[in-house]
Amino acid sequence: MRVTEQELEALSIGAAILGTGGGGDPLIGKLMAQQAVAEYGPVDLISLDDISEGDVVFPVAMMGAPTVFLEKLPAGEEGYLAVRRMERHLGKKVTVLCPIECGGMNSMIPFVVAARMGLPVVDGDGMGRAFPELQMETFHVLGVPGTPACIADEWGNVVLFETVDNYRLESFARACTVKMGGYSHLVDYPMTGSQLRDTAVRGTISMAIRLGNAIQAAQRSHVNPVQAALSATRDTIYGHGIPLFQGKVVDVSRRTSNGFAVGSAQLQGFDEDAGKTMVIDFQNENLIAKVGERVVASVPDLITLLDPDTGYAITNERLRYGQRVVVVGIPTPEIMRSEAALDVWGPQQFGYDIAFVPLEQAYSDFYRNVGVPKEKEKYLLSTMTGTR
Amino acid sequence: MRVTEQELEALSIGAAILGTGGGGDPLIGKLMAQQAVAEYGPVDLISLDDISEGDVVFPVAMMGAPTVFLEKLPAGEEGYLAVRRMERHLGKKVTVLCPIECGGMNSMIPFVVAARMGLPVVDGDGMGRAFPELQMETFHVLGVPGTPACIADEWGNVVLFETVDNYRLESFARACTVKMGGYSHLVDYPMTGSQLRDTAVRGTISMAIRLGNAIQAAQRSHVNPVQAALSATRDTIYGHGIPLFQGKVVDVSRRTSNGFAVGSAQLQGFDEDAGKTMVIDFQNENLIAKVGERVVASVPDLITLLDPDTGYAITNERLRYGQRVVVVGIPTPEIMRSEAALDVWGPQQFGYDIAFVPLEQAYSDFYRNVGVPKEKEKYLLSTMTGTR
Repeated sequence: MRVTEQELEALSIGAAILGTGGGGDPLIGKLMAQQAVAEYGPVDLISLDDISEGDVVFPVAMMGAPTVFLEKLPAGEEGYLAVRRMERHLGKKVTVLCPIECGGMNSMIPFVVAARMGLPVVDGDGMGRAFPELQMETFHVLGVPGTPACIADEWGNVVLFETVDNYRLESFARACTVKMGGYSHLVDYPMTGSQLRDTAVRGTISMAIRLGNAIQAAQRSHVNPVQAALSATRDTIYGHGIPLFQGKVVDVSRRTSNGFAVGSAQLQGFDEDAGKTMVIDFQNENLIAKVGERVVASVPDLITLLDPDTGYAITNERLRYGQRVVVVGIPTPEIMRSEAALDVWGPQQFGYDIAFVPLEQAYSDFYRNVGVPKEKEKYLLSTMTGTR
Repeated sequence: MRVTEQELEALSIGAAILGTGGGGDPLIGKLMAQQAVAEYGPVDLISLDDISEGDVVFPVAMMGAPTVFLEKLPAGEEGYLAVRRMERHLGKKVTVLCPIECGGMNSMIPFVVAARMGLPVVDGDGMGRAFPELQMETFHVLGVPGTPACIADEWGNVVLFETVDNYRLESFARACTVKMGGYSHLVDYPMTGSQLRDTAVRGTISMAIRLGNAIQAAQRSHVNPVQAALSATRDTIYGHGIPLFQGKVVDVSRRTSNGFAVGSAQLQGFDEDAGKTMVIDFQNENLIAKVGERVVASVPDLITLLDPDTGYAITNERLRYGQRVVVVGIPTPEIMRSEAALDVWGPQQFGYDIAFVPLEQAYSDFYRNVGVPKEKEKYLLSTMTGTR
C-alpha cells in the first residue's frame, strides 16, 4: 500500500481510536506526516510477510506526555536525528521503520521519518494500541532487547542507553525526557527482520486505516460513524468492538506527573445509562472503566471515548466538561493476552488489584448476538445528527 | 610521584579538606583506591608539564549525593566500565586519567581506575575543590565540551550523552543518576593533553597529599593539626587558610533532593566566638558561611569544617548534633575567580543575592599578619588534646 496524504488522514482517525485515549493528538501527528509526504513523496506500507530476515528495523516514536505535545510542537527533524544516531551507533543502515504503537501521534512518526529517508514502514507494531511505558511492547514480552536505544530533542541533544533490562530503559529515558521538556524522539528495540516477524502485532496500521476509512465513509453517507467504527473491527485480529456507555463528561482530573498525563474522567450516563456513572482512569492511555464499583473494561483491552456525532476519538488531553461521548471497548489481539504479556501490562502492573477479564467474556451476550444490542443500537442511531 | 597506599592515606585526608564539606566520604574512597593499588600496584602521578599534546585524557568521577555513597557502596568496576565504554565510543585508548574534582571520593576514583588499567593520573583537576554540578569545571569555563560523556551503574547499565551544552549534560545525567539509585560513575570532558594543560587547576592532588601529610605529621608530634593544615596552604596556588569560627553543631537540616544532599548546619560559638552563631548552607558542598547576618565566606572559596582534635575534615553527611568543629576558609586559586568562572559558580549561581568577596579581602588583617591571629591561635592550641 502506498501511503499518501489521504491514507494518513484515515490513519489518523483510526489510530486515535486504537490509541485508547492516549498516543498523542491525531491532528498534530497527521499534519507532521502529511507535510513530510507532500515534501518527499508517499511511503510504502509493507506487510510483515515482505520483511526479509536481514532487514534492519528501527521502531521510531515520540516519548512523553501527550498533554505536552499540544503545547510544544516538534521541530520535525528530531526523529531523523535519533535514527541517524542509532545507525552510527550500530554501524548499519536502517532498511525498514516500524511504529512502536498505534496512536494519533506514534502511528504517524514512522511516516514522518520514512518519507524523509525514502524508507518503507511496516504494517504492524509492538502492541496494536498505545501504552505509556517502553517495556510495554510485544518486542519486550517476546525477548527483544530494548537497547541500544536513543532519544533526541529539538535542540539536537542525544542520549544513548545501554541497559541490562527494558524497565531500566524506561526509567532512564523517562527521566531524561522530562528534562528535555516533556517529550523526546525515540528509537528503541532495533532489530532484524526476523525478530520483527516473530514479535510484532500484525496488520495494525492497515487496520487503523480501515477504521478511519469506515468512519469517513459513514460521515459522507450520513450513517452512524460510531456504528461504522465498531463494524470495521469485525473479522480483524481484534475482537468486535462493543459500545460500553453513553454519557456526558462531568469531571476531569488530569495532571502531568513524572512525565505522564495521569488522571481520571467521570461520565454521567444518559438515555439507557441514565442514573449511572462511569469513571475512567488513565496514565496517558485509558486503563480501567468502571460503572459504579463494577469494572466493565480493563487494560490491555482498548477503551476509547468517541464523539457520537463524528466517530472521532477524543484523546484525554482534549477531554472537557460537558462533552457527550460514547465509550467503546475493543478486545485486544490474542498476542496481547498471553500470561507473559499480562505480566507486563495487565491491570496489576498499573496498581489495580484485579485480574484481567476479557471484554468478550464480560459481554458474552453481546457476542452471542455478534452485533450491537438493540437498545444500544437505538441510542447510537439517535446520536447521529445527519448534519455532517 | 608514585602513589602507594601511604600517599592515598594522606590524599584522603587532604582532599576531604579541599572537598569543602562535600566530595564524598574520604574513608570509602580511600579503601577503594588502596584495595586497587594493593591488587594492581602503585599509580604514577604525573605533572601537567609531563602531559603530551596528543594524550587522550578522561576525567573520571562519581556523580550523586554523598549521603547515598555512605549507604550503597560501589562495586568497584563501574568506573572502569564507563572508561571502556567511552574508549569504544571515541575509538581511542585513554592514556591519562584525570580527577574532575578534589574531594574525599573523587580524588580517589581516578586511582581506582588507573591502578586497574595501568595508567597514570594527572596532578591537577577541574576545580581544586569539589562542586555539585557537572558544568562547574574549569574545563567548561575554558571551552572544553563536557560531552560525549557517559555514566555507568553497578548493574552494568550505561548511558551516553551528546548534548549541545554542559548544562544539559548536568540536567540529563543528574536525572539518570537519581534513577540509578542516587549515584553513578562518570566519564565526561574527554580531551587532548593540550586541552588539559590549558584548562586544569595545577598541582591539586599533590597539594592535597601535602595537606594530609602535614596533618599526619602534626598528629604524630602532638602539635595542633588544624594549625598544621592551615600552614600547609602557605606558598601554594591557594591563599593561606584562615580559621573562621569555632563552635558546636546545634542544628543540622539535610535532605536528599533532586540527587543532591542539600541543607544547612548551625554552629553555636564558644570561647572567643561565644554568643555568636554561624550558619553554613550546602548543596553537597558548603556554599556560604554566615555569622549572624554577615557572610564571612562564600563559594568558590573553600569552607571546611575540621575536627579540632584530629584536623580531619568533617563531610556534611557526617555532621551531627554536639560535634565541636573549627571552620576554616581557604582562598580558592586565581583561575577559579575569573569573571567567566564566577558566572558558573559564584554565589549568585546558587541562588544567593550577594557578590563574591575574596576571603583574603574580607580578612585583610589576618593577611597582614600572614599567620593565624593571636586570639585564634590561642583557641586552636587549646583544642589540641595531646592524646592522639
